Amino acid sequence: MLERIRVVLVGTSHPGNIGGAARAMKNMGLSRLVLVAPEDFPSSDAVARASGATDILDAAQVVETLEDALVGCTLVVGTSARDRRIPWPMLDPRECGVASCEQAAAGGEVALVFGREYAGLTNEELQRCQYHVHIPSDPDFSSLNLAAAVQVLSYEVRMAWLAAQQLPTKVAKLETTAMLNTQLATADELESFYGHLERALVAIGFLDPEKPRHLMSRLRRLYGRSDLSKLEMNILRGILTETEKAARGEHHKRGETDV
Amino acid sequence: MLERIRVVLVGTSHPGNIGGAARAMKNMGLSRLVLVAPEDFPSSDAVARASGATDILDAAQVVETLEDALVGCTLVVGTSARDRRIPWPMLDPRECGVASCEQAAAGGEVALVFGREYAGLTNEELQRCQYHVHIPSDPDFSSLNLAAAVQVLSYEVRMAWLAAQQLPTKVAKLETTAMLNTQLATADELESFYGHLERALVAIGFLDPEKPRHLMSRLRRLYGRSDLSKLEMNILRGILTETEKAARGEHHKRGETDV
Repeated sequence: MLERIRVVLVGTSHPGNIGGAARAMKNMGLSRLVLVAPEDFPSSDAVARASGATDILDAAQVVETLEDALVGCTLVVGTSARDRRIPWPMLDPRECGVASCEQAAAGGEVALVFGREYAGLTNEELQRCQYHVHIPSDPDFSSLNLAAAVQVLSYEVRMAWLAAQQLPTKVAKLETTAMLNTQLATADELESFYGHLERALVAIGFLDPEKPRHLMSRLRRLYGRSDLSKLEMNILRGILTETEKAARGEHHKRGETDV
Repeated sequence: MLERIRVVLVGTSHPGNIGGAARAMKNMGLSRLVLVAPEDFPSSDAVARASGATDILDAAQVVETLEDALVGCTLVVGTSARDRRIPWPMLDPRECGVASCEQAAAGGEVALVFGREYAGLTNEELQRCQYHVHIPSDPDFSSLNLAAAVQVLSYEVRMAWLAAQQLPTKVAKLETTAMLNTQLATADELESFYGHLERALVAIGFLDPEKPRHLMSRLRRLYGRSDLSKLEMNILRGILTETEKAARGEHHKRGETDV
């Protein structure tokens, strides 16, 4: 089950941190590492800090964009500093561990996304995440080492995983979730949907591409927390397709012919 | 209160780990570091890995024996691998965080004791601890990096400290939820929305009033579980209004006039 929880490191500068993250993951039973545009990888520094977790480094997937890293994911959680301009559904690390295990137990695919050492994730990247997680830290010295942040979240995943294994009462709930979740839309499907939604809103004149304001991020926040199933996504895509036709006047013309 | 919880590192080989431990402590609001017979300290490697937590390194107390490090302590917890010949009262990291905060809040002095990178604590050293704490890890790859272990226990101390202060760990989440919830759409507003949605879907030809099937109930289920805020509802209503205009050809005609 833990193999369905991937750690995604975006734009990592120091290969030592990649190695440290791999070691932290392996200690906690996680195995799947995805690197988005790492500055220096593979690297002997990564191997040194991995301290034996080289199998995770060897199997790490290197991709160009965050979008590529999230293909197939049904739950995407991004690490974030506390203060962000756009409020977003937040988890603390413990809730993140529980949510990740529940999703993975239900057959979903989970991504825990970590940003650059100094700059974190961009707002655009954060908006690709359904939830943000903040590791509580001293406000006067709040920036954790990247591998340390991976350690904390991986530790909470393991604590939740152990608890789920020891509490048979939870199984029924997980199975129910499984029934619902087997059909959850994936992160890449969600992205296509957002693209389609944006085009349709421009077509009907609701979204001005010159002044987009916060419209798309608000809609992302709404649909991102709704656990869209594949069926629901197909319905919404169908509505958008017909809306675009209406905006092109196709529906209107057909109406005229009918009358 | 947190100043009464000290981190004790015994016989550390690599000064980088001392720096990493100092950073992890400072991130979590701990400040008191005691080093028992470190192999190499002070060291530029420690300063580099401390990444700004040099005040903790500067104030670190260096002593010769564990006994010296534990002077004045009322609670001593030692990190331990799972299997030990002598059974001992065990805490998991979460219990360790709670016990440490309770003891410090009661005016006691707490020591969290970490052993050597490769050999851990000796049996004699472990017997100087009232409790042992084991960080749950994969039995096949169980040895955490020293700074990562300090990170996990310090994180649990902070979680317990925040809980004890009744400062929720999820301030941002509560604030976000509060912002959204004070403005939640009401049941009657939802009903108006569903009515509007249905009319718009008929207008664009996506919903056939003669054969409605399960479409509206599926959409009700989707939006019903999404906790729509008033703001989000206004956005969706705005989209529907523009969609209806497009279906009537108004947007299309306006487009033609513009051209």
